Amino acid sequence: MAKSNKHKTAVQEKKGISSPDITDNNSISKLKNKRNTQPDTDDLITGILSGNITALSRAITLVESKNSKHIEKAKAIINACLPKANNSVRIGITGVPGVGKSTFIEAFGKYLTGIGKKVAVLAVDPSSSLTKGSILGDKTRMEDLVKDENAFIRPSASGETLGGVARKTRETIILCEAAGFDTIIIETVGVGQSETAVHSMVDFFLLLKLAGAGDELQGIKRGIIEMADAIVINKADGDNIKRAKVAKVEFNRALHFYPEKESQWLPKVSVCSALNNEGIDDTWNMVIAYMSLTQQNGYFISRRNAQNKYWLLQTIEDRLKSDFFDRPAIKKELKNQLNLIETHKTTPFAAAEILLHLTN
Amino acid sequence: MAKSNKHKTAVQEKKGISSPDITDNNSISKLKNKRNTQPDTDDLITGILSGNITALSRAITLVESKNSKHIEKAKAIINACLPKANNSVRIGITGVPGVGKSTFIEAFGKYLTGIGKKVAVLAVDPSSSLTKGSILGDKTRMEDLVKDENAFIRPSASGETLGGVARKTRETIILCEAAGFDTIIIETVGVGQSETAVHSMVDFFLLLKLAGAGDELQGIKRGIIEMADAIVINKADGDNIKRAKVAKVEFNRALHFYPEKESQWLPKVSVCSALNNEGIDDTWNMVIAYMSLTQQNGYFISRRNAQNKYWLLQTIEDRLKSDFFDRPAIKKELKNQLNLIETHKTTPFAAAEILLHLTN
Repeated sequence: MAKSNKHKTAVQEKKGISSPDITDNNSISKLKNKRNTQPDTDDLITGILSGNITALSRAITLVESKNSKHIEKAKAIINACLPKANNSVRIGITGVPGVGKSTFIEAFGKYLTGIGKKVAVLAVDPSSSLTKGSILGDKTRMEDLVKDENAFIRPSASGETLGGVARKTRETIILCEAAGFDTIIIETVGVGQSETAVHSMVDFFLLLKLAGAGDELQGIKRGIIEMADAIVINKADGDNIKRAKVAKVEFNRALHFYPEKESQWLPKVSVCSALNNEGIDDTWNMVIAYMSLTQQNGYFISRRNAQNKYWLLQTIEDRLKSDFFDRPAIKKELKNQLNLIETHKTTPFAAAEILLHLTN
Repeated sequence: MAKSNKHKTAVQEKKGISSPDITDNNSISKLKNKRNTQPDTDDLITGILSGNITALSRAITLVESKNSKHIEKAKAIINACLPKANNSVRIGITGVPGVGKSTFIEAFGKYLTGIGKKVAVLAVDPSSSLTKGSILGDKTRMEDLVKDENAFIRPSASGETLGGVARKTRETIILCEAAGFDTIIIETVGVGQSETAVHSMVDFFLLLKLAGAGDELQGIKRGIIEMADAIVINKADGDNIKRAKVAKVEFNRALHFYPEKESQWLPKVSVCSALNNEGIDDTWNMVIAYMSLTQQNGYFISRRNAQNKYWLLQTIEDRLKSDFFDRPAIKKELKNQLNLIETHKTTPFAAAEILLHLTN
């Protein structure tokens, strides 16, 4: 890593020679030279707004930091980026491990950069600090996309609660959009409530599935299908093609049993083979159709506003709860009251009154 | 109303002659004589525990009161009743207006009292203070059940938030159980989040449906089918029988597309004609099968404990939120911050910080 940094700095020092993804201007040269020192906030902002990937990465690192100086810097950068953000389509992608998410995102991302899009791939994975279930941790799973100058891949913030990861991801979206990324892909493995969190930060929510034997919906968490704007059946290749087509019929039938969406969008099912690059364009065409519908009927804007309000209220509620329940006196009395409830000596409402009136 | 009270008191005064649903003992005689004065807490408790309907009704009125003296009395009564509560099956029933809920509950209730059960019918309807959508307000819709000495019907507490109605209903359940009612039916029309609230206070949740033309699931709110332990298709009579049977097949297929329940119960679909008293026993047989399964696998108890914990935490959270958001300074700044978010001048997270640090 240190070697590679050194090399890039050296390249940068030769005036006129820069790697193709770097916009060459003074502030970025400064940034490059400061690589191992604290980057300057203004330089990072200028860098992000001119599409510089290094500046973007370093700003995201500030967003993810717990250091109070970094937090202050991150705030300033986000505020400067806000007016240039919001011009993207945000796509959430979920699916159980083994469904081929990385292969699909690589094929989808390459397709998008091929038609002139700039694609950022982020992840929401509160478990990524643990070894189990980590996604995007190993960028080598997206070998081609990672080399693509119009793609930016960033693993999930780690060692965090879902609320923490969600905040950081939402702020990272702003930075990516300000850096000119017009298509944001947010991947999740669906640990705990992470699908709900991702659903609350994207415009379009895609469930990736496999055609398997037996019940096609086995293993799908409650509520996921209701959230989906599209179900894409992956690995429709070789012996699997027939099964994928059967699964498509089954899922279409299943979607029929869900209430109409507020967006007026009718969720669709498609099949693809990310491996063979087949059916990828169908997915994008669904996104285009969805965007066209929801921008015309006003849902697109009203949903983004509702999402902002949701995150505002959710952040406040989470804090109010943690401030209350983290008090040692509350922890102790809560245990006591739960015991009294379980033995039918009090009601939940009487117990709540006691806890709410506990001083200290 | 006053006339009827007077009449009953007069009847009571003739020693030895009492209406058949009244257990004749001294405390109840006292209670009767005090009808227009403040009832004594101990008398009410004795009355409830001996199955006296008048005592039960008056105690519920205390539970619903906003008067601080009444609230204190209600607390004392609930605490005394708690050890005798919890011995019932609690059944939630929902369905859109027109589905025949009253007719169904009347037929179901009569069936249950016919096999020796004591049935209490309550309602959760936060809209009942408004004229629209009120349920159980007109007891005459359950003419036969209302006259049944083993049935007790009580309309929803009115003029209240859902949280308030939910608390009062949960406390009323305790009083009804202590009065010997072994089957509690909670009706809801599903205004706002009321289905979720009812689902969180019952053991078994029943969705009443009609066989109609076209998409059978039209008009069903998101998430309701996932909550249902049974779907009962009503009005399967006359020309409707064939359609009801088709609907049964469709709903069974739909249920197949939902993830397995934690209770291990496989939700069932049945058809009935409440009007002709056909298929009512099927509904009860489902409840028996459900109770047998969940009492054996431990889900019944663990669910009731989880519900208690849910209501404890929910009550606290609601209060923390209302204490925060009802502050005038917060109301004003919230409006301001939402405006800044909408015009991309701040993020939901930065806005939350400002609100959380607002003094006064």
